[in-house]
Amino acid sequence: MGKGNRTLKEEKVFKDPVHRYIHVRDELIWELVGTKEFQRLRRVRQLGTTYLTFHGAEHTRFNHSLGVYEIMRRIIEGFEGRPHWDEKERLLCLCAALLHDIGHGPFSHSFEKVFHTDHETWTRKIIVGDTEVNQVLKRMGDHFPQQVADVIEKTYPNKLVVSMISSQIDADRMDYLQRDAFYTGVSYGHFDMERILRVMRPTEDQAVVKYTGMHAVEDYIMSRYQMYWQVYFHPVTRSAEVILSKILRRVRVLYDKGYSFKQEPAHFKGFFNESLTLEEYLRLDESVVLFYFQAWQDEEDAILKDLCQRFMNRRLFKYVEFDQNFVMNEWGELQELFRKAEIDPEYYLVIDFSSDLPYDFYRPGEEEERMPIHLLMPNGKLRELSRESDVVEAISGKKRTDHKLYFPVDLLETKGHEKEKQRIKEILLET
Amino acid sequence: MGKGNRTLKEEKVFKDPVHRYIHVRDELIWELVGTKEFQRLRRVRQLGTTYLTFHGAEHTRFNHSLGVYEIMRRIIEGFEGRPHWDEKERLLCLCAALLHDIGHGPFSHSFEKVFHTDHETWTRKIIVGDTEVNQVLKRMGDHFPQQVADVIEKTYPNKLVVSMISSQIDADRMDYLQRDAFYTGVSYGHFDMERILRVMRPTEDQAVVKYTGMHAVEDYIMSRYQMYWQVYFHPVTRSAEVILSKILRRVRVLYDKGYSFKQEPAHFKGFFNESLTLEEYLRLDESVVLFYFQAWQDEEDAILKDLCQRFMNRRLFKYVEFDQNFVMNEWGELQELFRKAEIDPEYYLVIDFSSDLPYDFYRPGEEEERMPIHLLMPNGKLRELSRESDVVEAISGKKRTDHKLYFPVDLLETKGHEKEKQRIKEILLET
Amino acid sequence: MGKGNRTLKEEKVFKDPVHRYIHVRDELIWELVGTKEFQRLRRVRQLGTTYLTFHGAEHTRFNHSLGVYEIMRRIIEGFEGRPHWDEKERLLCLCAALLHDIGHGPFSHSFEKVFHTDHETWTRKIIVGDTEVNQVLKRMGDHFPQQVADVIEKTYPNKLVVSMISSQIDADRMDYLQRDAFYTGVSYGHFDMERILRVMRPTEDQAVVKYTGMHAVEDYIMSRYQMYWQVYFHPVTRSAEVILSKILRRVRVLYDKGYSFKQEPAHFKGFFNESLTLEEYLRLDESVVLFYFQAWQDEEDAILKDLCQRFMNRRLFKYVEFDQNFVMNEWGELQELFRKAEIDPEYYLVIDFSSDLPYDFYRPGEEEERMPIHLLMPNGKLRELSRESDVVEAISGKKRTDHKLYFPVDLLETKGHEKEKQRIKEILLET
Amino acid sequence: MGKGNRTLKEEKVFKDPVHRYIHVRDELIWELVGTKEFQRLRRVRQLGTTYLTFHGAEHTRFNHSLGVYEIMRRIIEGFEGRPHWDEKERLLCLCAALLHDIGHGPFSHSFEKVFHTDHETWTRKIIVGDTEVNQVLKRMGDHFPQQVADVIEKTYPNKLVVSMISSQIDADRMDYLQRDAFYTGVSYGHFDMERILRVMRPTEDQAVVKYTGMHAVEDYIMSRYQMYWQVYFHPVTRSAEVILSKILRRVRVLYDKGYSFKQEPAHFKGFFNESLTLEEYLRLDESVVLFYFQAWQDEEDAILKDLCQRFMNRRLFKYVEFDQNFVMNEWGELQELFRKAEIDPEYYLVIDFSSDLPYDFYRPGEEEERMPIHLLMPNGKLRELSRESDVVEAISGKKRTDHKLYFPVDLLETKGHEKEKQRIKEILLET
Repeated sequence: MGKGNRTLKEEKVFKDPVHRYIHVRDELIWELVGTKEFQRLRRVRQLGTTYLTFHGAEHTRFNHSLGVYEIMRRIIEGFEGRPHWDEKERLLCLCAALLHDIGHGPFSHSFEKVFHTDHETWTRKIIVGDTEVNQVLKRMGDHFPQQVADVIEKTYPNKLVVSMISSQIDADRMDYLQRDAFYTGVSYGHFDMERILRVMRPTEDQAVVKYTGMHAVEDYIMSRYQMYWQVYFHPVTRSAEVILSKILRRVRVLYDKGYSFKQEPAHFKGFFNESLTLEEYLRLDESVVLFYFQAWQDEEDAILKDLCQRFMNRRLFKYVEFDQNFVMNEWGELQELFRKAEIDPEYYLVIDFSSDLPYDFYRPGEEEERMPIHLLMPNGKLRELSRESDVVEAISGKKRTDHKLYFPVDLLETKGHEKEKQRIKEILLET
Repeated sequence: MGKGNRTLKEEKVFKDPVHRYIHVRDELIWELVGTKEFQRLRRVRQLGTTYLTFHGAEHTRFNHSLGVYEIMRRIIEGFEGRPHWDEKERLLCLCAALLHDIGHGPFSHSFEKVFHTDHETWTRKIIVGDTEVNQVLKRMGDHFPQQVADVIEKTYPNKLVVSMISSQIDADRMDYLQRDAFYTGVSYGHFDMERILRVMRPTEDQAVVKYTGMHAVEDYIMSRYQMYWQVYFHPVTRSAEVILSKILRRVRVLYDKGYSFKQEPAHFKGFFNESLTLEEYLRLDESVVLFYFQAWQDEEDAILKDLCQRFMNRRLFKYVEFDQNFVMNEWGELQELFRKAEIDPEYYLVIDFSSDLPYDFYRPGEEEERMPIHLLMPNGKLRELSRESDVVEAISGKKRTDHKLYFPVDLLETKGHEKEKQRIKEILLET
Repeated sequence: MGKGNRTLKEEKVFKDPVHRYIHVRDELIWELVGTKEFQRLRRVRQLGTTYLTFHGAEHTRFNHSLGVYEIMRRIIEGFEGRPHWDEKERLLCLCAALLHDIGHGPFSHSFEKVFHTDHETWTRKIIVGDTEVNQVLKRMGDHFPQQVADVIEKTYPNKLVVSMISSQIDADRMDYLQRDAFYTGVSYGHFDMERILRVMRPTEDQAVVKYTGMHAVEDYIMSRYQMYWQVYFHPVTRSAEVILSKILRRVRVLYDKGYSFKQEPAHFKGFFNESLTLEEYLRLDESVVLFYFQAWQDEEDAILKDLCQRFMNRRLFKYVEFDQNFVMNEWGELQELFRKAEIDPEYYLVIDFSSDLPYDFYRPGEEEERMPIHLLMPNGKLRELSRESDVVEAISGKKRTDHKLYFPVDLLETKGHEKEKQRIKEILLET
Repeated sequence: MGKGNRTLKEEKVFKDPVHRYIHVRDELIWELVGTKEFQRLRRVRQLGTTYLTFHGAEHTRFNHSLGVYEIMRRIIEGFEGRPHWDEKERLLCLCAALLHDIGHGPFSHSFEKVFHTDHETWTRKIIVGDTEVNQVLKRMGDHFPQQVADVIEKTYPNKLVVSMISSQIDADRMDYLQRDAFYTGVSYGHFDMERILRVMRPTEDQAVVKYTGMHAVEDYIMSRYQMYWQVYFHPVTRSAEVILSKILRRVRVLYDKGYSFKQEPAHFKGFFNESLTLEEYLRLDESVVLFYFQAWQDEEDAILKDLCQRFMNRRLFKYVEFDQNFVMNEWGELQELFRKAEIDPEYYLVIDFSSDLPYDFYRPGEEEERMPIHLLMPNGKLRELSRESDVVEAISGKKRTDHKLYFPVDLLETKGHEKEKQRIKEILLET
């Protein structure tokens, strides 16, 4: 390994079912793919528990990360030689695209919720810390790893570069919509990316799309909308996630209580003690988590044992719609009934909600500012998408929310406390 | 759960990226899918180490098993009401299709080679033993589980039924070719299955294909041929498999020697002692195996540690063509050189060979008799495929073999024993 | 040919690139396809002048009609045995689906506009008149042809049957969206028809869709929306249509004036005299029209000659956006300038407008009442789609209109009247 | 129009269902597409009478010609900067690809057989004669049109250039296999063109394929083989062609006899008198031919009338296998019987044969020398494909021939001469 980047003598390709081929011409990229931190992404599924709903969706973040890289490569190909595009940013963009998810752990969503961690922090640590990834990146200069981290964290000064990986129409989203549609087998998620890339143009602040590509962008926004409700927020997937979160919570509670595990939660202790090192974090992948869940099916603790069996054998919770009035009226009664029936409501009566904002224009001051999509009009001016598109206007800024209540319907059929269980069923199932 | 099978009130479907939808109308099938033994297939990849070559190929045997079931269902739909087809065999066929791979463990190929076990035995044990699968099957009668096992083992008296799951053009092969092509992204593996199913006909002994479908069958055979050499026998996949086998072998050797592991190979001991119970076997999935490999990266033993690091981080062995003459002349020298260079040839100099017989007509007396494909001619007679098809005739009965030599080229670049390493490189790389 | 319908001894299939196979089991259908009136549809393109914009769209109404039949067949397959579905209507539905476009002539849109004819009238005449189609249909009884015509004309008493071929989600629309997308190559037009068919249910008045299929229906509505603006109303297609209409108009004017044609418009006279017989109409297909256009490239009349050369060699008119204010201010001046420049504005300055209503709920009293799409809710009640779907609600009832002005920009570059032409260009091109 | 070629200010694209987009960057190409000779290809179907067998196959040579151009463009993109590739040949290659079929007339195969003309001659005349195409080409220099013609005629000195458009794996074949498969809807015809293009390399004499792409090439050869027998030589297509040829023959016979036509064969006279001018040839497209066939359905001459009705209404001849022995024994009797039954065997008893050579290596001295496919081996040497590939070897050099006998089975069911007709049926149908 020398200094800097070299062009590979012969271009290398990965066969990819979504983009057909992923092309690598830079030695730096090739070596990043070969690092152990990047290879670890093969052991973290892209869609968490979705495979329990859509059996085809078993693909990993490794898979997706290569796809984002490839889209970025194609965007840049189209930018070459155009105003506002600085060729010196090329490798930075490619690295950020490839590494944008490097910090994801197993079932990130649940882990982050339960352990108050977040994958962005780990992403930065992997990029700037003592890792193989960092070593490879450093060959481009001492500041290069930090720049890559800045792009991913959206603090990099060149906003055009940031927008290519983090905006409402970026390489990340364009890959995952298509990839997740491909693997789940749903018919949504398709849009004419080739056309979008053809009409994408660099501007000072962000990548924009020529007016003639508006319909392709509309189609992309609609794909996004459909994928959210049909795939990402699917209630069965969320049921599995609810169980997973409850397992993590139970383990922590038992650990804190000094419960004596048959299989000690060794890999989790760093989380419990808030002392997790980068090295420990990198060891935590989905095979490790599943190893523990498998083992804990034989624990003494009835709740941990039951939840793990449910997860491993896909005996999920049932769900019903949950409306707000409900909270006021029967929520207290329901919790009481669960307790009386000896089904701990803490673990077995769970409200989960999802909400989506399929497209948003700029609303300054909001918590999570999202860069809107701009069209490049024939007169050279920019115009925010929803002002031109009826369809996008119609759904823009409208948050759609969905509350569901999860519980194990099978436990209501077991012996004992029949009266309470009967009443629970009346409340939950007969409305 | 009552006795027998019931038709579901409303048909259930699984969204499948290959067959679009998988249709379930029988309660029995629905419940088999729900058993923990079947759900376990979600933790066993369909193509073993292939995901290290084709990153898209992360799909599991769960995925494939549903596909085989669906194809079987469609075959039967076309058989209904035709001579030789006994409607009473319907459910038996469907169960056999669904469960034909139920005995597969993690990375079957390597485990079977190293531990002299075979997945067929475990399949039978799961079907007739004390399992949830068995309990569900038994509702069709006490003999039903055994019948399902017989179909899978090809000993069932109705040879037509056997041929639908085990012949050169059966539901199993038709699914995996298409599915593996889909997930790897290669352009082979496509053939007109809809046409083949339309012209498939039951006869006394086997399912045959009407003459008018011959070209679709040719296309299927060619797909098979291409998939074998392009995907299944890909040298990079085999490199990963070589390392995996060597890990298993090393663990066993260390265990036999009384080596003191940091992470005891608890789940493997049944194999070492030839005392593995069904319950233990069912616990052994790919997440468990990867958990150990991950842990063993920190073992004292240099070989185990190195091999595990290679597997986890995809630092595979290089390969060169291996020809027979080689054995006679330089093989001894090479082993000697490896030993002198302190690279144990037992683990680091490995010959691997693959061979394929893309289509075979009946050759009695051979070890593995394979039922040939028969065409139903306009005159009502049967004719073996290769007698009608030039293309099939051309490749039929021709075994193609490929020998490769695997070794860690990086170890030849390290310090020490330069002279030997130089000579090794001359022998291996300069021919 | 006997009385009634017979099931074919062996099912026949047509290979279809959109639906894979089109299945025919009824002798009646098979024979309808074989009639000369149906075969004539091979000489009438599905999308008129669209092939001049999307070169792939060269498919004919023959192609589409088989597709509509096939979708109808699949809808009925799903209806079998369900309440409200009367098996006796099966053949009627299939015939209506197959024949719904039988009355279309070449470039229907332009011919209908210029000659004030309409294809619906011809459809009825072909079905109930003295034709091969009528003879085949009559074998089902003397009233059968009239019933088929009634279904197509939406006057048949069983509204469920009518809705299957004429509603906002019918066999016709579902075929053409997919087929036109396939042949043009655009990425819109895809939706999960298999799912929609699976959840379509007969009710007394119309075919409805189960609530669980709402998202697939949304996707279908959006496809329709995109196809309209991206394909059906494409300004280049309309430019060719403008020229075509002007050719027809010019021929009529010349004919009325007693102009002496080198190539007499023999096949058109019936239109000019309003005396067109069914036999004459059936002779008029697109090859006949193109034969004349080819010949008329050599006529004396400069306008006819020029327009025909434009159409045959695709030298189309340019277009600019046309806004209403324009009419008030510069329209008169523009016409005057054209006249002065000796470019007859009657033929060379044309306003064309398109408008679409992507989805409409029931608005009684409107000219063209359109049956809305209803969802079948879990509680068994029906609910109009736009009340459940945000996306559909957003675009529903909103008419979008587009006016364009077409003119031959090349004629503004020729010698003579430079001043006027300069001014014309200022008005038309510099806004 | 100035001298030479200019790069377009903004790249233009055609949406193409097979290659997604066809990219045009050269003004020269854009203007060639706009010539009337090229636009005329929109009125000549790519697959002649095949649309009567596969209703989807209604695409034209315009469609295909753009596709060949696009593949050529991609091949050249891969050649840029490589040894043996002369950038100065780029535009020549693109023009030759675009124009290689420009001389095709309607139903070329039948016209060429009956009128002893050939489309190659017309291609040259269009390119070097007084046409719009020639005018555009000349802007590259006075010799450029002749060079384009030379490349198409394979006489151009740079054999590499010739091979890119005329060899066993050229832009022409790669387009039509995929395109014809797409439009017919058959599942053959797919191969990994992207991979082939990636590993195609220029050499002094021809374009070759790197060894690593061998399997993709095998797949391509097999596609070709399947398409020939499943699509191109389909007996129903040939039946329509037989009728078409007989119509042309009959018209000529009648014309020579001085028969008085209701619709004079004006456009055909040049063929009859061997005096056809280029201008006349260019007027002859499929709409003109169909115009005549339509009109001739009303001629007095029973044979012409009948044959035209058959073609227009798709009442084709039946076919039976025809074996050589047959000729010796019953051929004379059969002709005699036809004559006695008053069915002129000259028009109604037709032998047609097809034969294909799916792949051929170099066999010097043969009439039509075909350049074999060469692989570029790792050692830098070239090796003829069939020496490396078992599959190709198996089918290489093997001519497969198919003889069929066509006749109108319906005429054997009419009144009169029952005895002879009975005997004819015995001979033709009962073997």
